[in-house]
Amino acid sequence: MLIYILDMFGTAIFAASGVLMAGRLRMDPFGVIVLASVTAIGGGTIRDMALGAAPVFWITDTNYLWVIFITCIFTMLATQRPKRMPWYFLPVADAIGLAVFVAIGVEKALRYGASPMVAVIMGVITGCGGGVIRDVLGREIPMVLRMEVYATACIIGGIVHTAGLSLGILPSVAAVMGIITTLTIRLAAIRWNLSLPIFALRS
Amino acid sequence: MLIYILDMFGTAIFAASGVLMAGRLRMDPFGVIVLASVTAIGGGTIRDMALGAAPVFWITDTNYLWVIFITCIFTMLATQRPKRMPWYFLPVADAIGLAVFVAIGVEKALRYGASPMVAVIMGVITGCGGGVIRDVLGREIPMVLRMEVYATACIIGGIVHTAGLSLGILPSVAAVMGIITTLTIRLAAIRWNLSLPIFALRS
Amino acid sequence: MLIYILDMFGTAIFAASGVLMAGRLRMDPFGVIVLASVTAIGGGTIRDMALGAAPVFWITDTNYLWVIFITCIFTMLATQRPKRMPWYFLPVADAIGLAVFVAIGVEKALRYGASPMVAVIMGVITGCGGGVIRDVLGREIPMVLRMEVYATACIIGGIVHTAGLSLGILPSVAAVMGIITTLTIRLAAIRWNLSLPIFALRS
Repeated sequence: MLIYILDMFGTAIFAASGVLMAGRLRMDPFGVIVLASVTAIGGGTIRDMALGAAPVFWITDTNYLWVIFITCIFTMLATQRPKRMPWYFLPVADAIGLAVFVAIGVEKALRYGASPMVAVIMGVITGCGGGVIRDVLGREIPMVLRMEVYATACIIGGIVHTAGLSLGILPSVAAVMGIITTLTIRLAAIRWNLSLPIFALRS
Repeated sequence: MLIYILDMFGTAIFAASGVLMAGRLRMDPFGVIVLASVTAIGGGTIRDMALGAAPVFWITDTNYLWVIFITCIFTMLATQRPKRMPWYFLPVADAIGLAVFVAIGVEKALRYGASPMVAVIMGVITGCGGGVIRDVLGREIPMVLRMEVYATACIIGGIVHTAGLSLGILPSVAAVMGIITTLTIRLAAIRWNLSLPIFALRS
Repeated sequence: MLIYILDMFGTAIFAASGVLMAGRLRMDPFGVIVLASVTAIGGGTIRDMALGAAPVFWITDTNYLWVIFITCIFTMLATQRPKRMPWYFLPVADAIGLAVFVAIGVEKALRYGASPMVAVIMGVITGCGGGVIRDVLGREIPMVLRMEVYATACIIGGIVHTAGLSLGILPSVAAVMGIITTLTIRLAAIRWNLSLPIFALRS
């Protein structure tokens, strides 16, 4: 139940990031909804298609679509007033959504019989997939591919989650452990601007 | 039957728009076929994958592929002569294809047990998906996301279609109502250059 | 068995091409793994989703993921030393991987009941899909769409493969014939810089 509420929260946050991208690209309201939707449910959709979990999750539970729709209207209104949000609001909210989406992807993959390694990958896809589609449509190099410790946080969070399960920890506890891990790494990366050594071609 | 003919017409039109993009990118003939194909069947393919309608439609009915193939050859030949097409030929043809694809997406989604809201979304995906892939591959910001009243026309047409069905109207009549709605809005948008107020971030 | 070894070789080669792209984009190690993975298994994943072969191949056989992982580490290390590779190493290796992937795509499509025409297309998707995703994420116009005789080689190789089968040739022999055809055409194109006449719009 808590996970479901966090899932809706994550959906709203990711939709809002799609709305903001749409605002930079100067789209009309329905274009905004399209971009918000692919950002919020794109990752989970790819996951479900790959797992063979058909039809995909938002077809059977339309709450996701309502959350996106309401978020679009709310975000468009909110951005028309001079903003009073502290700078860290969006990155922190994004980190929460990301952490929850990773845990949901891991859990669903395991439920469909995937191995722990595949489950971690499905967690990464669920967390990062929507943002990748958003960035591709907006013609930017996907954030996840160039930002500090983004995919990394998802992978480590997913490993903690699956490792917890294979040690026999209660599923909900393992999920929360994974969420906290992903979240902590992302928050630390945001706060101290952490990054891994990058890999660059010698030329 | 009429719908099937229109479907093939829409497939041909969308394939032709892929050929024209390929011509701007100066591709070889097989690259042309690839780009024409993703434009013409990309939207329906995503729809079928999301619905769990496997295998996707063009695997079971290869007429789509033949239509694309013939369209490629015909379009490549036609564009080598000075063109005599009136300016509105392509946008109007595109509008017809779009309207039909939306109706087909709505109808197929309902047949697979989707709710009306999801059916409208599947209509939009079927109509706009291929063009989005075409534009992404050609490194343009997708037309549907920046053009006047494009996704909008699909959404309203899809709503009319599903609303008609839930009022008990004959399926074929409801489909035609939806098609006419999408088509009319697009044609009006083309003729009078209509656009919705855009949403832009205040900076 | 030989095919399986070649498949792993192709996976490694395609992963390495993803690593090199990641190096040009200056990513961190986990971003490298993400880009290598979509390049190596992206094409087969789209194929399996379209065929309804769920779950997709790398979920049931995680050897692919291990090969990608090891390739990433090896390639990152190898590129840190002044390179001694002859110029033709990468294109030739890529051609081998491509040829094998096409044959695997054709074979899997036929196994799922596709017609020969669809099987050829699935071969092309398997061979070219991953590279297209890699290029889109790296914001380049996909190589397959602008390079000499790339999709072309796949299509002809796939046709030889399926034609062989419908003439009653042993499946493994037909597969090898297809592989050799694709490979020969690509190698010839690389060696003599062959290209088809391009299609460009008159303006």
